[in-house]
Amino acid sequence: MAAANSTLANGPAKSPSAGRLASVYSEVQTSRLNHSLPLPSVLNAPFNVADGPPSSAAGNPDEIAKLFPGLFGQPSAILVPTGSGSSDLTGCMKIGVVLSGGQAPGGHNVISGIFDYLQERAKGSILFGFKGGPAGIMKCKYVELTPEFIYPYRNQGGFDMICSGRDKIETPEQFKQAEETAMKLDLDGLVVIGGDDSNTNACLLAENFRQKNMKTQVIGCPKTIDGDLKCKEVPTSFGFDTACKIYSEMIGNVMIDARSTGKYYHFVRLMGRAASHITLECALQTHPNIAVIGEEVAAKKQTLKNVTDYITDIICKRSELGYNYGVILIPEGLIDFIPEVQQLIAELNEILANDVVDEAGLWKNKLQHQSKILFEFLPQAIQEQLLLERDPHGNVQVAKIETEKMLISMVETELQKRKAEGKYAGHFKGQSHFFGYEGRCGLPTNFDASYCYALGYAAGALLHAGKTGLISSVGNLSAPVDEWTVGGTALTSLMDVERRHGKFKPVIKKAMVELEGAPFQKFASMRDEWAIMNRYISPGPIQFIGAGSNDVNHTLLLELGAQA
Amino acid sequence: MAAANSTLANGPAKSPSAGRLASVYSEVQTSRLNHSLPLPSVLNAPFNVADGPPSSAAGNPDEIAKLFPGLFGQPSAILVPTGSGSSDLTGCMKIGVVLSGGQAPGGHNVISGIFDYLQERAKGSILFGFKGGPAGIMKCKYVELTPEFIYPYRNQGGFDMICSGRDKIETPEQFKQAEETAMKLDLDGLVVIGGDDSNTNACLLAENFRQKNMKTQVIGCPKTIDGDLKCKEVPTSFGFDTACKIYSEMIGNVMIDARSTGKYYHFVRLMGRAASHITLECALQTHPNIAVIGEEVAAKKQTLKNVTDYITDIICKRSELGYNYGVILIPEGLIDFIPEVQQLIAELNEILANDVVDEAGLWKNKLQHQSKILFEFLPQAIQEQLLLERDPHGNVQVAKIETEKMLISMVETELQKRKAEGKYAGHFKGQSHFFGYEGRCGLPTNFDASYCYALGYAAGALLHAGKTGLISSVGNLSAPVDEWTVGGTALTSLMDVERRHGKFKPVIKKAMVELEGAPFQKFASMRDEWAIMNRYISPGPIQFIGAGSNDVNHTLLLELGAQA
Repeated sequence: MAAANSTLANGPAKSPSAGRLASVYSEVQTSRLNHSLPLPSVLNAPFNVADGPPSSAAGNPDEIAKLFPGLFGQPSAILVPTGSGSSDLTGCMKIGVVLSGGQAPGGHNVISGIFDYLQERAKGSILFGFKGGPAGIMKCKYVELTPEFIYPYRNQGGFDMICSGRDKIETPEQFKQAEETAMKLDLDGLVVIGGDDSNTNACLLAENFRQKNMKTQVIGCPKTIDGDLKCKEVPTSFGFDTACKIYSEMIGNVMIDARSTGKYYHFVRLMGRAASHITLECALQTHPNIAVIGEEVAAKKQTLKNVTDYITDIICKRSELGYNYGVILIPEGLIDFIPEVQQLIAELNEILANDVVDEAGLWKNKLQHQSKILFEFLPQAIQEQLLLERDPHGNVQVAKIETEKMLISMVETELQKRKAEGKYAGHFKGQSHFFGYEGRCGLPTNFDASYCYALGYAAGALLHAGKTGLISSVGNLSAPVDEWTVGGTALTSLMDVERRHGKFKPVIKKAMVELEGAPFQKFASMRDEWAIMNRYISPGPIQFIGAGSNDVNHTLLLELGAQA
Repeated sequence: MAAANSTLANGPAKSPSAGRLASVYSEVQTSRLNHSLPLPSVLNAPFNVADGPPSSAAGNPDEIAKLFPGLFGQPSAILVPTGSGSSDLTGCMKIGVVLSGGQAPGGHNVISGIFDYLQERAKGSILFGFKGGPAGIMKCKYVELTPEFIYPYRNQGGFDMICSGRDKIETPEQFKQAEETAMKLDLDGLVVIGGDDSNTNACLLAENFRQKNMKTQVIGCPKTIDGDLKCKEVPTSFGFDTACKIYSEMIGNVMIDARSTGKYYHFVRLMGRAASHITLECALQTHPNIAVIGEEVAAKKQTLKNVTDYITDIICKRSELGYNYGVILIPEGLIDFIPEVQQLIAELNEILANDVVDEAGLWKNKLQHQSKILFEFLPQAIQEQLLLERDPHGNVQVAKIETEKMLISMVETELQKRKAEGKYAGHFKGQSHFFGYEGRCGLPTNFDASYCYALGYAAGALLHAGKTGLISSVGNLSAPVDEWTVGGTALTSLMDVERRHGKFKPVIKKAMVELEGAPFQKFASMRDEWAIMNRYISPGPIQFIGAGSNDVNHTLLLELGAQA
């Protein structure tokens, strides 16, 4: 495979983000480069963009209306075939695109989709890629995307084509910088590929440009492996499908290992700090003995002891059946769902800021009764971590706690107690795993590759139709790609407000696991069987051809009412 | 997919090892069930078993001859087409098979290969699967393998068909138990699927049966993901190919993440306690910035400080080029290769057994000078681990040290020093990973599936030809399966002796990474480029159809002189 980009083919990359050499691609990477992507049928023929009904907000519409006077209430957009040979969408554009936040498989395909739209439907257009996330907009750091530049990234994982960043455009000065960039590049439009925060930001930017009477429109695209940016019109965020399949491959392998070895309990921590969608989806794909869903723990107001007991009870029951092994899935955000832990952390932060932590432990008397009990229930190593490792603000670093190791230690202690009481006669050995970075930059599945391409293509069309403040929306995802619907949804319709520092701030609420929703209900109906009997499924490595290669994840299918 | 085994289809498994329900297989698992395996052409037509030249030993042939008077010197065996329509191999047999030691992808296919040989070439034969490893032989715990029993395990990962175990048949009483089982089941033969120790054991068992004038023959099969059981006649052990490809998928994903994020150094610990083949193979597949090869560290008599400096130097150089990220591979056995660490551990064991470890640290004066320096060079957490966590014999638990975290901490300290000296101006954040259990039970690659099937089929043929004390040997592995050679190699020819407790013990020496060998040489010729420029390759998930699906690993191809 010859390197398609001549500047890359000439030798080593000159700058850190200068990219890839297609000539050192693996066979699978190369085969994916040339994978041709199907488009929804509406995108395969001339189309126009029609308006849907006017929109409101997810909550507090009056406040949202005040925050977005220019955009609030605008209708969603739907792409419809013209029926004739021509479309109303004409002319060329100058468009910018930016990746915002953590990596998710498929980001490169969104960019390819925008690019191909411009090439095919708005000839003469220019696409700028802002480098390193929103900071690239503010500093006007960009690269003009060409067919040669884009080619080595088609259907490839990662965000390294233009890289991403976590900066936000928030202050008046930052908005001013964004305006300057938009004017300097004469931007007709900007596509923001990001999660809930980034899409909120995209909408603020759209509102700002409109209020300033600038021509620059802004369209968002739903990205996050965590799967917590979704609504009726945006059935899933991209990257979730691929990431869950990568984690499930690993979990399935560990399950077969557990059954073969017969002597380990594998505690697998999975990404997902705010919501437990990844854990739930991986559970539906693999049938672990236990999966802890943070939203359920919160809804039932469970304590850490409750969670420990739940796990320990199942381990004891399994031991009676002769199984001294198993696989347990835990979302990384678990302890954020437990109110008593939040309370303890708050008290610790207060004490650590103002008091002396004496060796004898007298300081513990400053904890409230319940917090003291919890603190003493925690394993020694976690206690030390809470006291010693603090962030630059002096706060306890909750995110650094390795939840799976903490649970192993607590379960171990509980099992020893039960053994002493004659209630448990098995043997327990815990093995900890964290599956995270492995899943964020894998080669996108066929689903994510096609979904992202359609999202990008649609974003191009929405900009071409003069739309702003919408999020690219591709629907009917349980059907073949051909039948997918394409349009845009008012970002304001996804928003509610939160009161921060005495002011209302707009937020797109994270979509949590709904305990009444079909995915959790299916899990809940099967978990007792999975706990005791071993129904392990090993999904195996993601396939790009043949068996399972076009499967869609269970969460999405169940939410769409299709059979998973 | 209906469950093939009626006892399984009737409900939950009654015993912990009672197996699988094909009805809960994933699509990929199901597709693999029905994957038809190619056989070397010699196995596709009538063949006989011919003798090669007589053999010697890998070392100390006189001692090996004394230890194996009945077997020493026996020739290797080669399967040759009869040319006519009939073979000399006739009659039916009763055969046992056992899995010994850690899991490796493909074990089930070895068993399928033996089984299919018996079905196709020795009709009326019976195959017993001993359960839970060599203990199953000693306790006569077995299951009679039928087509229905075997079917759900075809081309599947894991060892759960009959499970494995780490017991050894060593004492006279244990040999006696094995003899009783062989007689009770009227065994004509036994196939031992295992690593270096298990194959040594298989040979002792073969010798023992022969000396007792029993008819039971023993054939070994080379298994270990570590890749350290190999020689000229046995070019690779099964499972290595699959495990390395699974780890490389993960490493490739982490590389793309590192490049996209631009702010982490990922330290990846890989399985391989005795030899660094896995780390080397994964390096050849993915081109990391650094891969530490234990055998080189040992050959150069490097210290932990040397290794730390080597890594730190590269990090500094990369920082000057604007790269504050990277991927570093480390074999889990690294510190076993460092003589000074071994010395420190020995001294610590002595001190911990006999002295008091005082808070003030006066005990450290009992360490030799060099050991004291090393101890104080170690990160605090590792120091504590060495002193506090001990095995039931009171010894320091070296295996529990998370080498990748230790190195991150040491590199961090060194970088801070250099920063203070004005020699480093970058920023460093380490992320640790351990890829181990994920790789031992994956669905076998096409290579491992075919290789194992041929190994098993050959083992059946060797037993049928009256052979004992051989290891099943399939060669010419860089050619298409069709052209593979098939035979058996005298296990004694792989052996040397070690003196233990004043006695000679036979051992199959582990095959270490050879610094003059082609795989290491290729790595050595490229690593300077990989260190500074980013030549990352992302192999992607193992494919069973299409691009790359029939690729063989680099180590094997390079060792066979083929182009990798």
